[in-house]
Amino acid sequence: MTGAEETGDELLGRVFLGRVIEPGDEAGGRWVREFGVAEVVRRLRCGDEALPGVTATRWAGLVARAARAEPERDLAVGRAAGARFVCPGDGEWPRQLDDLGDARPLGLWVRGRPSLRMWALRSVAVVGARACTEYGTHAAATLAAGLAERGWVVVSGGAYGIDGAAHRGALAARGATVAVLACGVDQSYPRGHAALLTRIAHQGLVIGELPPGDHPTPGRFILRNRVIAALTTGTVVVEAARRSGSLATARAARRLGRFTMGVPGPVTSALSAGVHDLLRDEATLVTDATEIIELVGAMGDLAPVRRGPVLPRDLLEPHTRGVLAALPGNRAAPAQEIALGARTTPEDAIARLYELRALGYVERHGDGWKLTRQAVTSVRDGDRLC
Amino acid sequence: MTGAEETGDELLGRVFLGRVIEPGDEAGGRWVREFGVAEVVRRLRCGDEALPGVTATRWAGLVARAARAEPERDLAVGRAAGARFVCPGDGEWPRQLDDLGDARPLGLWVRGRPSLRMWALRSVAVVGARACTEYGTHAAATLAAGLAERGWVVVSGGAYGIDGAAHRGALAARGATVAVLACGVDQSYPRGHAALLTRIAHQGLVIGELPPGDHPTPGRFILRNRVIAALTTGTVVVEAARRSGSLATARAARRLGRFTMGVPGPVTSALSAGVHDLLRDEATLVTDATEIIELVGAMGDLAPVRRGPVLPRDLLEPHTRGVLAALPGNRAAPAQEIALGARTTPEDAIARLYELRALGYVERHGDGWKLTRQAVTSVRDGDRLC
Repeated sequence: MTGAEETGDELLGRVFLGRVIEPGDEAGGRWVREFGVAEVVRRLRCGDEALPGVTATRWAGLVARAARAEPERDLAVGRAAGARFVCPGDGEWPRQLDDLGDARPLGLWVRGRPSLRMWALRSVAVVGARACTEYGTHAAATLAAGLAERGWVVVSGGAYGIDGAAHRGALAARGATVAVLACGVDQSYPRGHAALLTRIAHQGLVIGELPPGDHPTPGRFILRNRVIAALTTGTVVVEAARRSGSLATARAARRLGRFTMGVPGPVTSALSAGVHDLLRDEATLVTDATEIIELVGAMGDLAPVRRGPVLPRDLLEPHTRGVLAALPGNRAAPAQEIALGARTTPEDAIARLYELRALGYVERHGDGWKLTRQAVTSVRDGDRLC
Repeated sequence: MTGAEETGDELLGRVFLGRVIEPGDEAGGRWVREFGVAEVVRRLRCGDEALPGVTATRWAGLVARAARAEPERDLAVGRAAGARFVCPGDGEWPRQLDDLGDARPLGLWVRGRPSLRMWALRSVAVVGARACTEYGTHAAATLAAGLAERGWVVVSGGAYGIDGAAHRGALAARGATVAVLACGVDQSYPRGHAALLTRIAHQGLVIGELPPGDHPTPGRFILRNRVIAALTTGTVVVEAARRSGSLATARAARRLGRFTMGVPGPVTSALSAGVHDLLRDEATLVTDATEIIELVGAMGDLAPVRRGPVLPRDLLEPHTRGVLAALPGNRAAPAQEIALGARTTPEDAIARLYELRALGYVERHGDGWKLTRQAVTSVRDGDRLC
């Protein structure tokens, strides 16, 4: 990662490339790696020096797309929709996405208050069929609520069925949830989830690779799944018929060294058949949030700081430090009370509490939040531990 | 195994010991192994030379029980109920029970036509909760029918719930089933299964360690489970709450190197929780008979003769040879037609067809039976293959 990745030009270049190169296109990732963003942008803009490995026809198509790209406008539209663009190398970039190699997103559009990087450190994907059963809805919502209650972030795809149930379950538990879309983060897709997505953007995060205004295609759903898989410590499939897309997410997770898990169901249900195949094959059977956390909580690479705070308090963002300061020293307090003490909204307090959770400062106990033992110690020791 | 084990004295001695020593008592097994049946019987009858490792009180108890034992009467009562007594060393003894070591049954009471040894070569245990759900009943019956249709023998415990559904499923498919009781094989336990057990004894086998007239106790159920586990190539648990006895059968199977399998169910069902624990722990998830057979069919030790007939035709029991001769050379025939050709009843024909299946002579195809390729070849070559 070069220093240049953090400059405004780099960011603008990546927004530009997002209009030209489709998500997950490994050729595009290779060009960026080999020539740097600026050079790839320059060649696409000039059009007279083709990038390696493309036919003349494809090159012409890319150049035509480049001619139509308006990255400043995309940024303005995104900003108007409350979205920022996060690039590799940014402080908010979730580094585990680098595991995707050349298929790593060029950047991510992010709507919502919390730090994507912090939230993703302790996240689990809960995915499954769109046309799910009532059993699947119930199982997804219960798992998601259980994960949220234990301070874990629930990631899903914002779709009907299992995805929606997972997001709703997390929100209902006043928990943290991230929707990873296969379209622009300013789009309401599926349309019936417009209110849900607005709520997620308000209480959590709505993210995606595609520029504002872009629509989903079948291919984009599949490629979106790799982001869900890479972002999280593990993927739980709740209901999936054979050949369901969520099984692809689980397999991608496995290829990336993440945990793959499945929720069993009746053998008489076609919507559990795909999950059962997965369980026979490679995945771990899970029946509740505790079992999921038991598995993924043991994994260190996404959450390297399980034993105590990583960042000294001084380096925390001032508002986050304010929320931390509002926690009582000796008991758990509900988010509402902490928000009052920190003079902010409950949503803002919750966003920051989950960040502080990822950093090892706080724990969630039922509906309340309390300082970890390490956090109390680090206060006493003036952060000398860090 | 000494030649003496096959004499009538040995048999009578073992029937006698069955009245004195409880099933699975390893001390009893050790005495028999160290001193032989005759000597153990002599000491128990005399009472003046205690066997090793027993307190005086326990010895007095054993001697008192020995004084009341009437093995000739047991044999006569058993015979009247249609039961024979099969000992280690007998031709019909299922040698895989020897894996139980000193907990090996002293012998087994057997009601029914077929050869226990032959039938058990290709058998699978299907067990589970007594108070099961409709889902469990359905799953057990479907699995058992599927196993039976593919020429496998379904073993269970004759209890209400999953056991009964498994037996019924196998019978409904005109298949082979074995009930292993925790009481005398002349007893109808549970009482509501009197008709079912009669039907199993007529079309299959009802077996058990306990002498005629004996009743089950909680301890006897648990010890019966080790026989189910040892007799079969693998154990499938269909529904089981946490701490269910059928989980003990599965664990016993695992300790004995047999396959343990579980049928998943809704995570919301307490009757699947035990199975899910098992699946998370050590068992293979199965959803249909094909998956079970895929697993256990690969195992060679209980069924060493999967590639062709073991026994030359001349060594087959004459009636079994008659059934074999009644099979058409070039197509599958229903059991009824084969029975007609062999001048026997359909039940007798089915019993012998499953024996011939275990020996590699025949295969079941849906509702019909046909000669295996090896059997056809061995006819042409005058059994020279064997």
